[in-house]
Amino acid sequence: MNVLDLDTVRLSADRRALEILDQTLLPNTVRVLRLTKQEEIWEAIRSLRVRGAPAIGVTAALAAALAAAEIRETDFDAFLAVFRARLAYLSTARPTAVNLTWALDRMERAAERCRDLAPGELRERLFLEAEAIRQEDIDISLAIGRIGLTLLTPGCGVLTHCNAGTLATAKYGTATAPLYAAMEAGLPGLRVYCDETRPLLQGARLTAFELQNAGFDTTLLCDNMAASAMQKGWIDLVLVGCDRVAANGDAANKIGTSAVAILAKHYGIPFYVCAPSSTIDLSTPTGAEIPIEERAPEEVTEMWYKERMAPEGVKVYNPAFDVTDHSLITGIITEKGLCRAPYEAAFAALGLGERGVPRRT
Amino acid sequence: MNVLDLDTVRLSADRRALEILDQTLLPNTVRVLRLTKQEEIWEAIRSLRVRGAPAIGVTAALAAALAAAEIRETDFDAFLAVFRARLAYLSTARPTAVNLTWALDRMERAAERCRDLAPGELRERLFLEAEAIRQEDIDISLAIGRIGLTLLTPGCGVLTHCNAGTLATAKYGTATAPLYAAMEAGLPGLRVYCDETRPLLQGARLTAFELQNAGFDTTLLCDNMAASAMQKGWIDLVLVGCDRVAANGDAANKIGTSAVAILAKHYGIPFYVCAPSSTIDLSTPTGAEIPIEERAPEEVTEMWYKERMAPEGVKVYNPAFDVTDHSLITGIITEKGLCRAPYEAAFAALGLGERGVPRRT
Repeated sequence: MNVLDLDTVRLSADRRALEILDQTLLPNTVRVLRLTKQEEIWEAIRSLRVRGAPAIGVTAALAAALAAAEIRETDFDAFLAVFRARLAYLSTARPTAVNLTWALDRMERAAERCRDLAPGELRERLFLEAEAIRQEDIDISLAIGRIGLTLLTPGCGVLTHCNAGTLATAKYGTATAPLYAAMEAGLPGLRVYCDETRPLLQGARLTAFELQNAGFDTTLLCDNMAASAMQKGWIDLVLVGCDRVAANGDAANKIGTSAVAILAKHYGIPFYVCAPSSTIDLSTPTGAEIPIEERAPEEVTEMWYKERMAPEGVKVYNPAFDVTDHSLITGIITEKGLCRAPYEAAFAALGLGERGVPRRT
Repeated sequence: MNVLDLDTVRLSADRRALEILDQTLLPNTVRVLRLTKQEEIWEAIRSLRVRGAPAIGVTAALAAALAAAEIRETDFDAFLAVFRARLAYLSTARPTAVNLTWALDRMERAAERCRDLAPGELRERLFLEAEAIRQEDIDISLAIGRIGLTLLTPGCGVLTHCNAGTLATAKYGTATAPLYAAMEAGLPGLRVYCDETRPLLQGARLTAFELQNAGFDTTLLCDNMAASAMQKGWIDLVLVGCDRVAANGDAANKIGTSAVAILAKHYGIPFYVCAPSSTIDLSTPTGAEIPIEERAPEEVTEMWYKERMAPEGVKVYNPAFDVTDHSLITGIITEKGLCRAPYEAAFAALGLGERGVPRRT
């Protein structure tokens, strides 16, 4: 089985269920859940069975379309009232996930445009809108993949951090999209290195799984081993995803990303951020204005075999993300093109507006 | 209880047993083992109940003195034959630990010098030799602590990596010695940050334990969070231990140390290596000649809660150590003085010979 034969999330063939690859069971078990009830989908989002902002957005859109199909009201205003209640319910699954709200808002606007349609056609339009959101996400990954592929050479080694992979999107991922493009193009000798990404191990559990499963020459390493791999000359390029890019090019991403960027700069290795243009937020001047979530100490001290692995009561610093200074970023790969410093001018050349939508949380 | 009230290893008051703090139970349980049999001591070394090269050397020396006291032979040559067999047995507990061999060789030479002494006096001399080895180790730590203390300022934040602490030595540690000296001197506002140090978590299990227990303001962080802490301005100084220093100042230490050095350089933070002069090996020209042990993949993939956290069969890069280039090292603190670049000249000024003894593995 190749992970790209699996979808992160999709509508079932009979359009009565969502089929979600349960990421909480990876890498040990590959199980596709068939979810028909809104409560089941809510729980799947809440429990991180599906995660990664683009994937959450796609899931929410498909869930909204399913919800619409189940609403019995034939009167438009009655339908809309129930539909909005369903959307409001879904939006509580992960309140801080920007893409969840974004996708549900888009489904609501799509419904609002359908006042004059027959009930069946209205519901069909919402399926189409949800599928469009899913396809747009795939198209963005494919575009990033095509651009990123131009940076890869035969036999090159690529380091990535966390999971900005196919499992975080509808398909192909962002940081991994150039790798999948390289596989499709038959680039020989590609080697991929995955930081395990403490504390939650998305690199070990998800990225190493999806890349190995897809047939890449995949090597897992602890976060603190990346410098050693670079010192040995194994790494030719770093590709990472991002949660938000500020107007000056500073990029917020999973904790540890900025460390990888500093190491790459030290060893003269290009460091690229793969970013859907919606993650570029021109209303945020620099990375200093991006709030960084601090998470529970127990993620660091207790997620171990048998018993806790740090003393009781010790203070813990456990930020979820960090900001990589734009001076450390060789380029930012968006689906609209490759941006290089000065980023303000590069973003303007892409025709970006005042505010992008952060896509991954 | 303060960890400095505990000894890593010591002779019991009745001189019939070794008392060893069982480090495999930390940080959850503080238990001092009373070991009377050579087989028990061998097992304690083998099973890492006592670890850290200086501590292993001290343990071996004390164990050898205990063994001598139990030998019934009164004829010197008969005694020496049995004693050498005991030493040979102890040396198999951790064959690659250089300090183990070094300490046992020294005990053998001490015995050889006692041919003309009465049996009781001979055994007493070996107790004295073992205690001298222990006291010399403490004196080295105290000297490093005094020198390192001059680099600390009120309210400063110090980052350390792995465990070069009191638990790795007879007392006070190497990288931690300046911290204990600061505590004794009453330096106000000192903050200490411990990298957890994947894969074996010596930072979380041992360093965070001993420093918090000693009363320091201690914060634990994952290895990939050090850059974020530096970015926030929390870190004023980095202190690490080392396993071996090459003639040009390149320093081999626990994996991840070189990454911390690169990050420190990027943020303009001084990075000091605390090194007993015996770890400076002038016969090794550069770090490139220092062999780096690669360890079992399972340390990375399986030491987790319930089940493995990386896919079956994935390649793993799991080096135990890395080499920090001398250009990244602000200074090397030995018990004989503080060395700065060019290190060749600095080491010569210390009067070092051709070969030091690596003290920690």
